[in-house]
Amino acid sequence: MTDQTKTANSMWGGRFAAGPDAIMEQINASIGYDKRLYAQDIRGSRAHAAMLAAQGIISDNDATAIREGLLTVLSEIEGGNFPFSPALEDIHMNVEARLKEIIGEPAGRLHTGRSRNDQVATDFRLWVRDQCDAAIGGLRALIGAALTQAEAGADWVMPGFTHLQTAQPVTWGHHMMAYVEMFGRDLSRFQDARRRMNESPLGAAALAGTGYPLDREATAKALDFDRPMANSLDAVSDRDFALEFLSASSICAVHLSRLAEELVIWSSAQFRFVSMSDKWSTGSSIMPQKRNPDAAELIRAKIGRILGANVALFTVMKGLPLAYSKDMQEDKEQVFDAADHLMLALAAMTGMLSDLTANRANLQAAASSGFSTATDLADWLVREAGLPFRDAHHATGALVAMAEKKGCDLDELSLAEMQSVNSAINQSVYSVLGVHNSVASRQSYGGTAPDQVRAQIARWNDVLGKEALA
Amino acid sequence: MTDQTKTANSMWGGRFAAGPDAIMEQINASIGYDKRLYAQDIRGSRAHAAMLAAQGIISDNDATAIREGLLTVLSEIEGGNFPFSPALEDIHMNVEARLKEIIGEPAGRLHTGRSRNDQVATDFRLWVRDQCDAAIGGLRALIGAALTQAEAGADWVMPGFTHLQTAQPVTWGHHMMAYVEMFGRDLSRFQDARRRMNESPLGAAALAGTGYPLDREATAKALDFDRPMANSLDAVSDRDFALEFLSASSICAVHLSRLAEELVIWSSAQFRFVSMSDKWSTGSSIMPQKRNPDAAELIRAKIGRILGANVALFTVMKGLPLAYSKDMQEDKEQVFDAADHLMLALAAMTGMLSDLTANRANLQAAASSGFSTATDLADWLVREAGLPFRDAHHATGALVAMAEKKGCDLDELSLAEMQSVNSAINQSVYSVLGVHNSVASRQSYGGTAPDQVRAQIARWNDVLGKEALA
Amino acid sequence: MTDQTKTANSMWGGRFAAGPDAIMEQINASIGYDKRLYAQDIRGSRAHAAMLAAQGIISDNDATAIREGLLTVLSEIEGGNFPFSPALEDIHMNVEARLKEIIGEPAGRLHTGRSRNDQVATDFRLWVRDQCDAAIGGLRALIGAALTQAEAGADWVMPGFTHLQTAQPVTWGHHMMAYVEMFGRDLSRFQDARRRMNESPLGAAALAGTGYPLDREATAKALDFDRPMANSLDAVSDRDFALEFLSASSICAVHLSRLAEELVIWSSAQFRFVSMSDKWSTGSSIMPQKRNPDAAELIRAKIGRILGANVALFTVMKGLPLAYSKDMQEDKEQVFDAADHLMLALAAMTGMLSDLTANRANLQAAASSGFSTATDLADWLVREAGLPFRDAHHATGALVAMAEKKGCDLDELSLAEMQSVNSAINQSVYSVLGVHNSVASRQSYGGTAPDQVRAQIARWNDVLGKEALA
Amino acid sequence: MTDQTKTANSMWGGRFAAGPDAIMEQINASIGYDKRLYAQDIRGSRAHAAMLAAQGIISDNDATAIREGLLTVLSEIEGGNFPFSPALEDIHMNVEARLKEIIGEPAGRLHTGRSRNDQVATDFRLWVRDQCDAAIGGLRALIGAALTQAEAGADWVMPGFTHLQTAQPVTWGHHMMAYVEMFGRDLSRFQDARRRMNESPLGAAALAGTGYPLDREATAKALDFDRPMANSLDAVSDRDFALEFLSASSICAVHLSRLAEELVIWSSAQFRFVSMSDKWSTGSSIMPQKRNPDAAELIRAKIGRILGANVALFTVMKGLPLAYSKDMQEDKEQVFDAADHLMLALAAMTGMLSDLTANRANLQAAASSGFSTATDLADWLVREAGLPFRDAHHATGALVAMAEKKGCDLDELSLAEMQSVNSAINQSVYSVLGVHNSVASRQSYGGTAPDQVRAQIARWNDVLGKEALA
Repeated sequence: MTDQTKTANSMWGGRFAAGPDAIMEQINASIGYDKRLYAQDIRGSRAHAAMLAAQGIISDNDATAIREGLLTVLSEIEGGNFPFSPALEDIHMNVEARLKEIIGEPAGRLHTGRSRNDQVATDFRLWVRDQCDAAIGGLRALIGAALTQAEAGADWVMPGFTHLQTAQPVTWGHHMMAYVEMFGRDLSRFQDARRRMNESPLGAAALAGTGYPLDREATAKALDFDRPMANSLDAVSDRDFALEFLSASSICAVHLSRLAEELVIWSSAQFRFVSMSDKWSTGSSIMPQKRNPDAAELIRAKIGRILGANVALFTVMKGLPLAYSKDMQEDKEQVFDAADHLMLALAAMTGMLSDLTANRANLQAAASSGFSTATDLADWLVREAGLPFRDAHHATGALVAMAEKKGCDLDELSLAEMQSVNSAINQSVYSVLGVHNSVASRQSYGGTAPDQVRAQIARWNDVLGKEALA
Repeated sequence: MTDQTKTANSMWGGRFAAGPDAIMEQINASIGYDKRLYAQDIRGSRAHAAMLAAQGIISDNDATAIREGLLTVLSEIEGGNFPFSPALEDIHMNVEARLKEIIGEPAGRLHTGRSRNDQVATDFRLWVRDQCDAAIGGLRALIGAALTQAEAGADWVMPGFTHLQTAQPVTWGHHMMAYVEMFGRDLSRFQDARRRMNESPLGAAALAGTGYPLDREATAKALDFDRPMANSLDAVSDRDFALEFLSASSICAVHLSRLAEELVIWSSAQFRFVSMSDKWSTGSSIMPQKRNPDAAELIRAKIGRILGANVALFTVMKGLPLAYSKDMQEDKEQVFDAADHLMLALAAMTGMLSDLTANRANLQAAASSGFSTATDLADWLVREAGLPFRDAHHATGALVAMAEKKGCDLDELSLAEMQSVNSAINQSVYSVLGVHNSVASRQSYGGTAPDQVRAQIARWNDVLGKEALA
Repeated sequence: MTDQTKTANSMWGGRFAAGPDAIMEQINASIGYDKRLYAQDIRGSRAHAAMLAAQGIISDNDATAIREGLLTVLSEIEGGNFPFSPALEDIHMNVEARLKEIIGEPAGRLHTGRSRNDQVATDFRLWVRDQCDAAIGGLRALIGAALTQAEAGADWVMPGFTHLQTAQPVTWGHHMMAYVEMFGRDLSRFQDARRRMNESPLGAAALAGTGYPLDREATAKALDFDRPMANSLDAVSDRDFALEFLSASSICAVHLSRLAEELVIWSSAQFRFVSMSDKWSTGSSIMPQKRNPDAAELIRAKIGRILGANVALFTVMKGLPLAYSKDMQEDKEQVFDAADHLMLALAAMTGMLSDLTANRANLQAAASSGFSTATDLADWLVREAGLPFRDAHHATGALVAMAEKKGCDLDELSLAEMQSVNSAINQSVYSVLGVHNSVASRQSYGGTAPDQVRAQIARWNDVLGKEALA
Repeated sequence: MTDQTKTANSMWGGRFAAGPDAIMEQINASIGYDKRLYAQDIRGSRAHAAMLAAQGIISDNDATAIREGLLTVLSEIEGGNFPFSPALEDIHMNVEARLKEIIGEPAGRLHTGRSRNDQVATDFRLWVRDQCDAAIGGLRALIGAALTQAEAGADWVMPGFTHLQTAQPVTWGHHMMAYVEMFGRDLSRFQDARRRMNESPLGAAALAGTGYPLDREATAKALDFDRPMANSLDAVSDRDFALEFLSASSICAVHLSRLAEELVIWSSAQFRFVSMSDKWSTGSSIMPQKRNPDAAELIRAKIGRILGANVALFTVMKGLPLAYSKDMQEDKEQVFDAADHLMLALAAMTGMLSDLTANRANLQAAASSGFSTATDLADWLVREAGLPFRDAHHATGALVAMAEKKGCDLDELSLAEMQSVNSAINQSVYSVLGVHNSVASRQSYGGTAPDQVRAQIARWNDVLGKEALA
């Protein structure tokens, strides 16, 4: 390690009398986690080297040596043969030191017109951009799984809940499509974030730009960025892209937590609305009968760590003066962790939803109890008996109270009993008290009527199909 | 209050034996804060009533009475003559109860095909959409103030910092433009959020849609929404628009905190980079000489409450099953508070920046000390003496150490002293050691050279001008 | 307002050319919320004045005038006749300006040896200390309500859940006592926080202490503090007491959220474990049959705003240099809001728990299904048949699978069927398969056996009784 | 992996048809991080085995085999020879499976009367308790370093700041002692948390307690717990100890962030109040003259991840029904990360403070400028000229404005100039305008007078000395 310390010091210039001791190395070195940026780092360096040669800043021979050498480093890392060194602090230093061992003196020219500040900003931005793509892909798969469930159960009746109390009958397909809408917004949020972050910091150098005649458009293009960032101070001090990624991830994780909560509740012995596949459940070490919805619970919990990462980075960035401060090194682990767990949660939810069996009979039985068609009754009173809505509501409340007292359902009240509350009620009222009729009647746009649900499924299949082609 | 309690109970239907007592009223009633939604509530109700009549669901006479009556309510509220009642729980009930007093029986028909669930979702969405517009307006003003500062000081030299250590000279204009980029991204983030939230929940009813032949396109259009939301369960259970607004606000507040921190540091006796206007400072009750940058400190702190509101709503929404749960009532105060303080911080920062005097002489003097052109020296060694970058860096380090030891600046070292470190150094090296030369040389795109800064100012003036026309 | 502005400026000394304009007043003034500190402010000022006279720093006559005048101000505020002025910024200036109107010149001597910095620190600390007492009182009441439920149902059998799956039978009393333990820890946390914060900042002056011969012990004692704070810089820059109060509140709010979640789930038509009182439920504007557990949902949500306040203050305090910075003015609204809603949630939960009816029959029926005594069977196999635990677990799993396939409960398997899995099983196994036997057998300390539960109830009654006397 | 999967399934009992696939293993397995609990797990299991034998539940021979075998496992893990298996999910299964390989059948008896739920609660509680001890130790070291700085500079004058504006002169020692107070409160907070968490969950079994005649007092004693937890449901579902540890850590991290911010500002070229050791600074890859306060910046940032972890666990625990839910598995990584980085930050701050050089001359020069003795002047006017404080304040403001206009300090105003503002001023006023006099005069308890500072240093040395003996 003495040699590596010397190497690191000599990289910083000849100024330091003392090397970092163990604590400093531990708090300062990022190589333990930023090695994950190796592919982005090498890609960025190769683009930079090619541009330097094209601009005549370094020779073509040097550029070729650098670019080939970097491919060697890449294959060493991917082959698991790369000796990462904490004394070399970070992935950038590790790659560059190894490059020097492989190609010698030309390695020293790679860093011309560049700084670790714009280099790390470029690497990290490329990495987060990849995660946007991964999230978009994961969301498409999850939406697909939800659409499949929705298609199968477009007309399966279940209780629609508010306050976890039965409110009105809805369909399984309609419920699934609510999540499709949520995940669809998540998808568009990641698309917006990706577009906004897709600018290249490379060439901003330490903070002020550089006097070398760099072609920042060229490196931006080589790295599939839309354009170079327009202010060099901003380029090295900005972490908006990470904050926006974490914010979009947090919203997505909230959606996942809501669906997971429903799956946990629906899996209980009291609900039995769904049966989880064994693939996504586990047993108990002491209670052999248990089939625990572990995957759903773990997905529900993921909002914790993703929101935590979000808060962490906001707190780190609060009040930092321009341009780069070392505090910003704390950005990566938070984003790595949040991204890993978001992708894992998306994959697990997709799998769980694909393997899920809805218990159609239980769903319908639950929908049929609990006076779930009381609103239909109130609407009938408005429509057929001409009551103002508030009066119809009041009469319905009295009928529900009557049925509750008798221990029967609404359609088990006799016509005489109904008429004792409101004399305008007649035999035809019974037609609106069945759950299938109720559901079929909700024909307003976006309503729970199976036709409406199927129209939305078709729209989404169309949207996803077109995007896939694009 | 007994009468109001009775009214509230009778609104819920005839089912409740006991009225809510004081604690329940206190925890349950939202009228104390959701009265802020009165304009949105009335606007939504008027659109709903017009549509009900157009669809033949209520009579034209009833619709006219309702729409006129609501205008009366509006003017009562705006005139400060409206008796808000906690027993009527929320703004929706308060408005409707008053409408009934004014127009009588037709008031009861307004709620046809609607529920408090879609009503509150519509009102709140309209309110948050207005806040997006307010944030966009506030950001445009703030960008304008920063552009004015940047134009004035496009070539004023100041130290560019990393780690709050002098790194390289930059210009005041360049530094201001870094914030223009940040606030520009904020602006685009609010635009995206606005576009994504601009769908109408109205007509989703309680959660399932309705059997009334509503025209949801019509109400969406009347309320300037792009379209109706496509799933009624989602329409009443979604608070993404609030979460996204809070996330965008949090990122914006981070930017404000960074600029505020700089203003606080720059106002210190040790820096004296800027002079705050008395308008944005205060004195001390015990230390009469103080001119405290209170406004800047308060702006710096705003990220606290805005991030806190963000965390609050994420935590509330975590794990809520569909569709509406009463937990969601906790959304409003968080968004109200965050929006109020974001707008206030934007206004205060705009004012403070407009009134700010940069101390040009102090800026330049600070830029000229601290070996800020060491990088220029290193670059000269690469360019003119042909050293690999890492070697040039090393030689520069030795020269800085020599100057530090002598207590002089780099350009005060003699040529002989310089050549003792590297013999290739010649007289022309002194041309790159001045801060104006340094700054002028950073001609890479987005660099700190005044020409580059002015180009970016022009681009932004163009962008803002075009948007203003659009 | 011009006059008030002039007054405020003259209070700051003669230094300011320009008065604060509207935005500055809005962002800077705290009187809108810190008026809640009026009683603490007046109490602190009276103690300070008495001490000044006792030390001979002001005359007895002046002290008497000040102390009497402050009582007049107090009664004006409590009588609702006090004209709060935003131009006078905060409660301290408002009180002092009014005092000057009442008693004239001596009012100017009150601020001797004191600053707004130590004054606000003292006031706020007194206020937070009161909230600790309020939380302790609220928790005692809530524990009392839980103990009453536990006593009533010490032997009512219900399902014990893990993963919301039936695990083993427990008792209602045992479940209630779990919350008693949680709230008991909350209580001790507020006691510790109170003790730690109970030191007096008064006399720290602006930040450095003062040359006046103050007796800080005397003012500490007069304000019921244990001692003066030992460092004047710390005294004015510390907000630990607020952070610790918010942290303790957040943990308490998590407990409340867990109990509230259970109440919401238990109130569902599928569980029907409890019946909520109408006092704590509400109806629906469109669905007359609903009895929504609104209070429980709102309590569940309170962790959101309390955690949000916690995050807000942590974020505000991050990275503030000593001593006082204006950022710290953002502390009060967060703590006010969190304290108000914690107390409200404690009160509502206490009321809800007191009015709650547990459905004993439903609880027992649920406990008896779902193979809840599988662990008892496994334990029997270990104890009576001598199997290693893991083997017993495996055999039990096979028996559960068999019963599940047959659609029966464990005690409905025949002995022959049981013996097909393990030949050592004999008739006596059936004795452990009943839920009452199961519960009664859990005699380990802290277990669910009714005797154990009653012992814990007795212990808690004893603890609370003794504390009440102390 | 197939074999391991089979092993895992057979541990769960014979019930599962399908093994977990890769995603499920990835989301479900905790062995990747909970292996850190190995020592606690083995310690807990050894205590449990000894108790089982003492109670006659297992044989002495079995207990001896188990306890010896566990020591073998311990030495394998500590020797780095232990083959951790993800298919065995967690540390508990890994240890037990290996124990079975080593000692065979008796291994199966270890889990008697125990569940993974109480086992993991015990292990984690022991681990967090250790971290409390580590934090207490780290804080003692840090307080020691601050006391050493305070002793050296008990009478070095420096500017006391409010709003980062010079307010009044204080001493270096006084400033350091402010942090001693903060870290002292942190220490007491960790002591309280440790005491509150020091109860044993072991023996709570899955959630209901057990029918085995366990001696929970004995295992509690063997594990140095004060007592067994009093409710088995609470024992397995409580994570208060982790939340309280994270809350105490967050407050401590705020203190560290404040000191770190000061060190960063004080290291700037504009302040030069301190010189950082090279050990805690780093250089720049492009700017060779930089000496960046990296360690201070990284410490400043740590509040981010620690607060993030805090939020994460609060969010995870929100709304979880009793008893154990799998969500709670997300607790460990958050606490591990927060604890690691808190300890690292404490160590780095201790080292940095020990190596820090305060620039006494710069501190004094800064204190002497900026009208820092204006308060002393105002106090002189009250004391010697008999002005009411507010009038004295006003007169001082006029004198400061005069000096500012002239560009001189207060003691450079002539007596005539002074008397033009207030005729009562005489020659003796100049005695209070020097910073040393100012500081020496602040003799109120806890004030900045060197005597007061030294008294506090002595008190703290005494406190720490006594604690070390205890």
